[in-house]
Amino acid sequence: MPASPISDLSRCAIHTMTNKPWTLRQCVDAYSAAGVKGISVWRNVIEPIGAKEAGKLLRENDMRVPALVRGGFFPATSAEARAKAIDVNRACIDEAHEIGAEMVVLVCGAVPGMSLEDARKQVTEGIAEILPQAHSANVKLAIEPLHPMYAADRSCVCRMTDARRICQQLRDPLVGIAVDVFHVWWDSDLQKEIRLAGETATLLAFHVCDWRVQMRDQLNDRGLMGDGVIDLRMIRGWVEEAGFKGYNEVEVFSDEYWKMDQAEYVKLIGERYLQHV
Amino acid sequence: MPASPISDLSRCAIHTMTNKPWTLRQCVDAYSAAGVKGISVWRNVIEPIGAKEAGKLLRENDMRVPALVRGGFFPATSAEARAKAIDVNRACIDEAHEIGAEMVVLVCGAVPGMSLEDARKQVTEGIAEILPQAHSANVKLAIEPLHPMYAADRSCVCRMTDARRICQQLRDPLVGIAVDVFHVWWDSDLQKEIRLAGETATLLAFHVCDWRVQMRDQLNDRGLMGDGVIDLRMIRGWVEEAGFKGYNEVEVFSDEYWKMDQAEYVKLIGERYLQHV
Repeated sequence: MPASPISDLSRCAIHTMTNKPWTLRQCVDAYSAAGVKGISVWRNVIEPIGAKEAGKLLRENDMRVPALVRGGFFPATSAEARAKAIDVNRACIDEAHEIGAEMVVLVCGAVPGMSLEDARKQVTEGIAEILPQAHSANVKLAIEPLHPMYAADRSCVCRMTDARRICQQLRDPLVGIAVDVFHVWWDSDLQKEIRLAGETATLLAFHVCDWRVQMRDQLNDRGLMGDGVIDLRMIRGWVEEAGFKGYNEVEVFSDEYWKMDQAEYVKLIGERYLQHV
Repeated sequence: MPASPISDLSRCAIHTMTNKPWTLRQCVDAYSAAGVKGISVWRNVIEPIGAKEAGKLLRENDMRVPALVRGGFFPATSAEARAKAIDVNRACIDEAHEIGAEMVVLVCGAVPGMSLEDARKQVTEGIAEILPQAHSANVKLAIEPLHPMYAADRSCVCRMTDARRICQQLRDPLVGIAVDVFHVWWDSDLQKEIRLAGETATLLAFHVCDWRVQMRDQLNDRGLMGDGVIDLRMIRGWVEEAGFKGYNEVEVFSDEYWKMDQAEYVKLIGERYLQHV
């Protein structure tokens, strides 16, 4: 059943990458002013100021941080590269802890020429290896299935089903799934998989944007909610029926919107959120 | 298990669209000269000469025709448009019969704003409606799942699983599935679905090309076998284990290759086929 319309922005969060031209401080100021208290923080805006300073900024402004984005990229052809990925992911977990993020989003990775099955095995092993650190820091790990058009080099986890199978193997309360409508909207098993994720308490995040009919770029032409074909209210209905009570996170990579006046854009995000999510 | 290498072109077929600059006669002459006796014929090369003349040309040159490409595009928002699609598909079946094609390939269609579930229902109803014509003509109907990146406006059938569910509803010996590696290579259920298609005698066609890591265009930048990441020999192994004995059909849409000297290109296709399929 489609969800009821949303009347305010209290459950809205925005990914800093949505406003790529901005610093973390600019994001915090603008989101706060717009009444958006949720912010998912990409590492590129932490890097110039450090995690400690970023955490202070977020706490002082009473921001809620669903996620640090992003860890993952586990598969590699050499042991050295795999070990390095583990180190990077441990650093992500530390940063997430420092800034008060509930989870690290994992874009799992893929290596051209490596079978997706082998890559998924390496992903599962990689997550297992960073789990002790996640437990120490009490930070969740959200596997984000990516659209199959990224399977060659970005993610061997292409569907909720693939993510669920990894969760089943690891059976750890900190490991779950981030549902991003852009990546999974087309899947005929989506409703079922969202329900299963709810039942197994692995439904950790819900990301919204839209899918344009005529996409001009595979990476940076995501639509803002309402620009495309995704039935957001229907999918939010499934997510809420599955018991999800977290933020609806707006995550849009868009050369077009990055060219806009970003303050105007944040206003537009709020409008579209209320109209379409 | 990966298939054994292929030593000749006797099971190779080429889609005329692979050599888009050419007429049907040019395709027939070049493929024949190269030792390729299989040809899947797109409607655009029939149109200038008519199906009768096309059939004569193909028979005189002793060509085998796995498929006429393409019918489908069933879903629409008006009854008139749906009825028109049925007419077009009936014409496809007549043409397929006239040129001696074993099957019509169906690109099922999708309508921006219509749910994929509703669209799939319309696809199932559409196929049911053209089945009597298919039986009169003894022409098979091959549902081709398209890559999820085409789900907004080209195909509500995004996976083998979706195609299988339609086959299960229709349960007709003439209805089956065309497996195109470009569209389905990333699917973690691919091996299982190919096996199931074999068991239910719905495995009608096998299309090969490749998936480039850096795709420059969503429609017309397919790779020739060997240009990308798809493990063709593995997938052919699954297809043959499932009992498939038909043609390995080369279907490549590529602005880059269409610019080549097409005779040279046919030579290259033969080489890559033997190296990679």
